[in-house]
Amino acid sequence: MKLAIIAVGTELLMGEVVNSNAAWISEKLAALGVDVHVHYTVGDNPGRIQRIVGEALTHADGAIFTGGLGPTDDDLTVATLADYFNTPLVNHLPSEARLREFFEARGQQVLPNNLKQALKPETASAIVNPMGTAPGMAWVTDWSPSPEAPKKPVLLVTFPGVPKELYSMWAEAEGHLLAFQRQLGETPMPLFSEHLQFFGLGESRIVTLLHDLMDSADPTIAPYVGRSVVRLRLATKAPDAASANAKLAPLKATVIERLAPYYIGDGQETLEQLVGDLLKEQGLTVALAESCTGGLISSRLTDIAGSSAYVHYNVVTYSNAQKTAQLGVPEALLSQHGAVSAEVAAAMADGILARAGSNVAVSCTGIAGPDGGSDEKPVGLAYLGFACVGQPTLTRRVMIHRHYPRAEIKHWFSQYALHYLRQLLLGVLENEG
Amino acid sequence: MKLAIIAVGTELLMGEVVNSNAAWISEKLAALGVDVHVHYTVGDNPGRIQRIVGEALTHADGAIFTGGLGPTDDDLTVATLADYFNTPLVNHLPSEARLREFFEARGQQVLPNNLKQALKPETASAIVNPMGTAPGMAWVTDWSPSPEAPKKPVLLVTFPGVPKELYSMWAEAEGHLLAFQRQLGETPMPLFSEHLQFFGLGESRIVTLLHDLMDSADPTIAPYVGRSVVRLRLATKAPDAASANAKLAPLKATVIERLAPYYIGDGQETLEQLVGDLLKEQGLTVALAESCTGGLISSRLTDIAGSSAYVHYNVVTYSNAQKTAQLGVPEALLSQHGAVSAEVAAAMADGILARAGSNVAVSCTGIAGPDGGSDEKPVGLAYLGFACVGQPTLTRRVMIHRHYPRAEIKHWFSQYALHYLRQLLLGVLENEG
Repeated sequence: MKLAIIAVGTELLMGEVVNSNAAWISEKLAALGVDVHVHYTVGDNPGRIQRIVGEALTHADGAIFTGGLGPTDDDLTVATLADYFNTPLVNHLPSEARLREFFEARGQQVLPNNLKQALKPETASAIVNPMGTAPGMAWVTDWSPSPEAPKKPVLLVTFPGVPKELYSMWAEAEGHLLAFQRQLGETPMPLFSEHLQFFGLGESRIVTLLHDLMDSADPTIAPYVGRSVVRLRLATKAPDAASANAKLAPLKATVIERLAPYYIGDGQETLEQLVGDLLKEQGLTVALAESCTGGLISSRLTDIAGSSAYVHYNVVTYSNAQKTAQLGVPEALLSQHGAVSAEVAAAMADGILARAGSNVAVSCTGIAGPDGGSDEKPVGLAYLGFACVGQPTLTRRVMIHRHYPRAEIKHWFSQYALHYLRQLLLGVLENEG
Repeated sequence: MKLAIIAVGTELLMGEVVNSNAAWISEKLAALGVDVHVHYTVGDNPGRIQRIVGEALTHADGAIFTGGLGPTDDDLTVATLADYFNTPLVNHLPSEARLREFFEARGQQVLPNNLKQALKPETASAIVNPMGTAPGMAWVTDWSPSPEAPKKPVLLVTFPGVPKELYSMWAEAEGHLLAFQRQLGETPMPLFSEHLQFFGLGESRIVTLLHDLMDSADPTIAPYVGRSVVRLRLATKAPDAASANAKLAPLKATVIERLAPYYIGDGQETLEQLVGDLLKEQGLTVALAESCTGGLISSRLTDIAGSSAYVHYNVVTYSNAQKTAQLGVPEALLSQHGAVSAEVAAAMADGILARAGSNVAVSCTGIAGPDGGSDEKPVGLAYLGFACVGQPTLTRRVMIHRHYPRAEIKHWFSQYALHYLRQLLLGVLENEG
């Protein structure tokens, strides 16, 4: 089964609302083994909606609509579909009763345009909307691209545009999708996928290292670039989880083995989560001394619930004077090497380790831009320091694209700090120099 | 001029990425007075891409593409378009030089698949990508729906799918859009708009306070809910900025006057920018003592270029012991009132003010959840402290929806801290008692 997704709403074409529903529905359909053919977004215009319905149904077995179910005059999805398929609209009594109840519970009068929302094509099934006034519908009807062409059954499902209403209606709609899949004589082959996350290697480098695997037709491997991470999706269609896993697991193991030092995890793991897990496991506390990142690393570490187990005290020493006053960084070091140097990064890490009484300490000093760079020390340069009780302090130099926006450069610095802290906790961080 | 927007990428149809680019581009096009006809999203499949191009150009004057410009085999937008329009691909030497420079600057080898990104249809213009390796293109070529039909000129513009790369390339692309508009003999009637931002009032409250203005047909007023801010867009179509302003300015003045205490600004201003401007103007420095926000307020303040003028030293004291050790918060205060209390917030603000030697200090102590709440002190509760040299220390209590995710609660706490700091600097913050 192959479906199109059609979002209706001029506000989407004006760029006032991002169409997140299409992605949400697509993910649900992928999990059911339903192919998504094309996403369309069309304005509140009956002629254009009908044209796009024709174009979609020529190539797909049906369409899922979002939007255009509201009470106002420019909400016309249902009426336009009834007209296109030449079917009368009828009042759906249970929907009308729910509408009246909804308004009466709020002490509001039901207006005639509200009652429009209880209309549906005669042969369609209504889908209850627990979160709002507009019911959806699921409708299997016959269609052909032209009067001469043979007819085929098509499935039409409508949802409101408000995401939380769509989400609350999905489970009921899914029953109609599966029933239509059976009507088409298809055995569902859901898509099973694994998402592997990597940091520290670019997309093209990953693709090169996995070159012999990238052409695999089943499971497929596809790279996606996220914010400072690269994700690989391994996917296969299978009748059940066990047979999917038999195909995915060996490939996953090979990929992880080959890219081990850069592998973050197989889900939505963040580096702050992985670092937090390691700190907890090892019973360690960490302290941070940040300069250019301004507290971002600290904030990311404390985004994790339970981080109070390992975060007690962090500082942001933004000025040279405060690096000396609060961390004991010698003034001579600052004047000799500059604040952005491996030497100062190491002294900051040592300083916060002693003052916080933590087991591990991380520092970051760099140039987040857009000003303050020089030929020798350009925007995007940072030095990170890593201190542990009883071990020599290590430093790493990182260099981010100097044209990135300031907040993005801060993010990358924080990402590297967490990446190397993780390597430190895993016992694989080496000194650079 | 009427354009379609075509996003290319199987990951979009799989629901792995939300297509935010279509909305962003649509907003830019609306500002230029260019109509957006339909948004399409199509997978990495040459046949389908070409079919959608044909369907789009039948009804529009051109199409803007996002995605499919990467180095891998499934990035095929440019090759597919060249094939569809029967035009050879040629190597664009400046793009190749930029690519080589990009990789060499990173000490990486240029791989053959990277060089693919320097190819463009012979008669297309390249658009420089300052943020990545894939240049875009703008191409005016002739097209007809069938061999018999007359040809018409169409505009094709390609962008990478990575939003920040698209954003950085837009200004150059806009020149090509305007040139094509002139080629079509159109006088642009751009949409002029003002975006007013508010914090501290919900959407429905704003709509109620502006009830008599909301029905205005020209300029239109529309509310949008952002992340913890509400935006109002005032918009009108006009031949030039002066006639637009004659309509927008009086409405803007009325709205701002009515909602003054909640007004943040008329653009993309952030509270950290406004606070930073005030600190600079008044020649003041600020210091922060954060607990539950974990460095987020500090990080947001230092997202502003030049913030080193007023940020010197901030701390995150996550544990009670560190609140006492680093800020001098009396142990008795902590045991009597608990860490999340107005008393401790005030003591933290006083402590950091003295230790940082700053003019102003802000503290935040609260419960970001999901655990750690009680009936008396639920998740979502925070106390903020505001200290100034020579003035009594003020506190504010804030309460965020306890079901929000932890990071969202931290964001709202930081938003309130900056909002009240701004009021303090404006001389309008009062103690809550």
